[in-house]
Amino acid sequence: MAVNLSRPDPARLRPVKGVRLGVAMAGVRKKDRNDLLVMRLAPRATVAAVFTRNRFCAAPVSVARAHLARGDGIAALVVNTGNANAGTGADGMRRAKAVCAALARLLGCKASQVLPFSTGVIMEPLPSERIVAALPAALDAESDWLSAAESIMTTDTVPKAASTRVRLSTGEATVTGIAKGAGMIRPDMATMLAYVATDARVAKPALRRILATAADRSFNCVTVDGDMSTNDAFVLIASGEGPSAARAADVAALGRAIESVSRELAQAIVRDGEGATKFVTVTVEGGRSVAECRQVAYAIAHSPLVKTAFFASDPNLGRILAAIGNAGVKSLDVSRVDLYIDRHCVVRRGSRSPAYREAQGAAAMAKPEFEVRAVLNRGKARAAVWTCDLSYDYVKINAEYRS
Amino acid sequence: MAVNLSRPDPARLRPVKGVRLGVAMAGVRKKDRNDLLVMRLAPRATVAAVFTRNRFCAAPVSVARAHLARGDGIAALVVNTGNANAGTGADGMRRAKAVCAALARLLGCKASQVLPFSTGVIMEPLPSERIVAALPAALDAESDWLSAAESIMTTDTVPKAASTRVRLSTGEATVTGIAKGAGMIRPDMATMLAYVATDARVAKPALRRILATAADRSFNCVTVDGDMSTNDAFVLIASGEGPSAARAADVAALGRAIESVSRELAQAIVRDGEGATKFVTVTVEGGRSVAECRQVAYAIAHSPLVKTAFFASDPNLGRILAAIGNAGVKSLDVSRVDLYIDRHCVVRRGSRSPAYREAQGAAAMAKPEFEVRAVLNRGKARAAVWTCDLSYDYVKINAEYRS
Repeated sequence: MAVNLSRPDPARLRPVKGVRLGVAMAGVRKKDRNDLLVMRLAPRATVAAVFTRNRFCAAPVSVARAHLARGDGIAALVVNTGNANAGTGADGMRRAKAVCAALARLLGCKASQVLPFSTGVIMEPLPSERIVAALPAALDAESDWLSAAESIMTTDTVPKAASTRVRLSTGEATVTGIAKGAGMIRPDMATMLAYVATDARVAKPALRRILATAADRSFNCVTVDGDMSTNDAFVLIASGEGPSAARAADVAALGRAIESVSRELAQAIVRDGEGATKFVTVTVEGGRSVAECRQVAYAIAHSPLVKTAFFASDPNLGRILAAIGNAGVKSLDVSRVDLYIDRHCVVRRGSRSPAYREAQGAAAMAKPEFEVRAVLNRGKARAAVWTCDLSYDYVKINAEYRS
Repeated sequence: MAVNLSRPDPARLRPVKGVRLGVAMAGVRKKDRNDLLVMRLAPRATVAAVFTRNRFCAAPVSVARAHLARGDGIAALVVNTGNANAGTGADGMRRAKAVCAALARLLGCKASQVLPFSTGVIMEPLPSERIVAALPAALDAESDWLSAAESIMTTDTVPKAASTRVRLSTGEATVTGIAKGAGMIRPDMATMLAYVATDARVAKPALRRILATAADRSFNCVTVDGDMSTNDAFVLIASGEGPSAARAADVAALGRAIESVSRELAQAIVRDGEGATKFVTVTVEGGRSVAECRQVAYAIAHSPLVKTAFFASDPNLGRILAAIGNAGVKSLDVSRVDLYIDRHCVVRRGSRSPAYREAQGAAAMAKPEFEVRAVLNRGKARAAVWTCDLSYDYVKINAEYRS
């Protein structure tokens, strides 16, 4: 029951030259589903990635970080769903490395040229033997981006993929990406895997800058339940098989296209938030800094009381005021705060707006998408985050996840 | 469906000499229920209080703070349920003051000698005229502590009251208290009103110290949903009509008794947490500081994924590891962390304990009360917080609160 999110049209997901996809059934946790994805990259590909900041990062995250740092060039990515290989200690490290080594042998490259990723249940041993056994099938498959998106799903109800083209001075480049994630989502890389690839040729430093900006304006602006996973990663691949993006204007144009695909994927994760029935944009304006605006926006977006009111389409907007007051902005003068729901001003200068009628708020919140906008009136900064409501089904999904 | 919490036995709630209680029906929000409480204090009573740190504090909180600061001595407290008088601006301040002034006229004292408290829905005008009209009835009533506890309930399913006696060198003192709160509960005073009274004679500075310690070890150790209300208050009253607590040993003994009553009330709030089916003690040991231990304990206790796993009796303990990793303790070495559920070691040195069997965790978590204990192995500090699970009914209660 995702909010305004449907299965992507495979015809609109453009292949990316220099990125070969293959999915297979490894039987990691469930039979009869593709749960393994291998992405093979052209030799001149550049790769940049950001990972979870959770101190309990999973074994594959540690291995992928180390392999990227080696700088040998990345030949392939291998992703399994069903098991996160997190909280698994030295054995988990060994198993993540074994998967890389096995794929490297099949491809004739070094193990350090393979990046491993895992998602699924935590604290269970990774069945790396079954993954290794399925690698040849994944290499034989010639899969499309939609199949790739499906192969990495966990509690997602809809596969997530997006694609665009961008005209550079050197030719037209393609940008296509996939993502998974439906719960345990919050800024700073939550339980979410995202892979965005372009055929453009981009030098590593430029690719890293594009990645940082895109992450900040997409995956770092979403929250479902405020939990941050042990496994999150956002990987940006430039295969180098298409037009070159070396000039500043081309890098900027490519960056905007990558940002647009990333934002579409990030919003898809919220639209498919566990149990979500509403997609809510929380905007905070008039703050002294972007950081302060984000802090207030997340205080609103993380409050269970606010999120249950969203679910109920109940304009109990006092709960939003309470969340703003709790955001930890010590010098905040609440008697200057204005609050809007869509175009209706519900709070002016810290108290209920005389013109506001509850029916206005109720009508706005009954829609599947609406905006909550707080104006702090103490500066010029602005930030927005995207979130969803907290419903019975969030509890149901998370109480029954393993059964 | 509170967890191991039943209606207090009125025979065990000892009256406190010098504190007269009266409840009445003001019709603030619902008819046919007592929703107004007046507590009249003996002339030599001393009073200390701590309030919410929410920047959007309610009008009665501002007024009560100002009246306490005046130092004229407190003659009475007036509490209404049904309406929080929060987010109500200048009109809310006027109405809170009007209630104080009306009660002061009836009692022949100054308005600044009355402390007002409100709880209930936010951002609705307080019907202060109806409260003022019901004050004479409250003054005529001679109510007991159980009736007082009932008169301040909102979404509480059980009235909360506790009582004890303590032997001082000057005689036996009584300590009796009431509280309300079932949701929007978290440290630093959440949506919670608590009034603890003793007949002992205590100087104001000593009373303030007792209050600070008791708050830190009771109400500041509980969390239901991580939200902090606009109206919370914890008030400690010493009527001065009983034995004197002037010697250090007597102050200490009285402090312990007050702490014990406060802890019982705080735990009752968690046991009656909105939708709670489990009462969970989260202990963190081996930290470098108490603050760090609390930070980790709250990260566990606030995680919706952990709380839904509690609800499901699902020992998906990896979610607890992920919460520990998210707690924001930057230098935490997760490969040193041990985790226990009751007496079962589930994680040793950062990964699954080989001896652990999932049936052990499932059996422990199936009980209505259990302990989650994380050992950080980096210091000697320790902290514990009490929390509950996140169930369907939390969503139901909060989605339907106003309907």
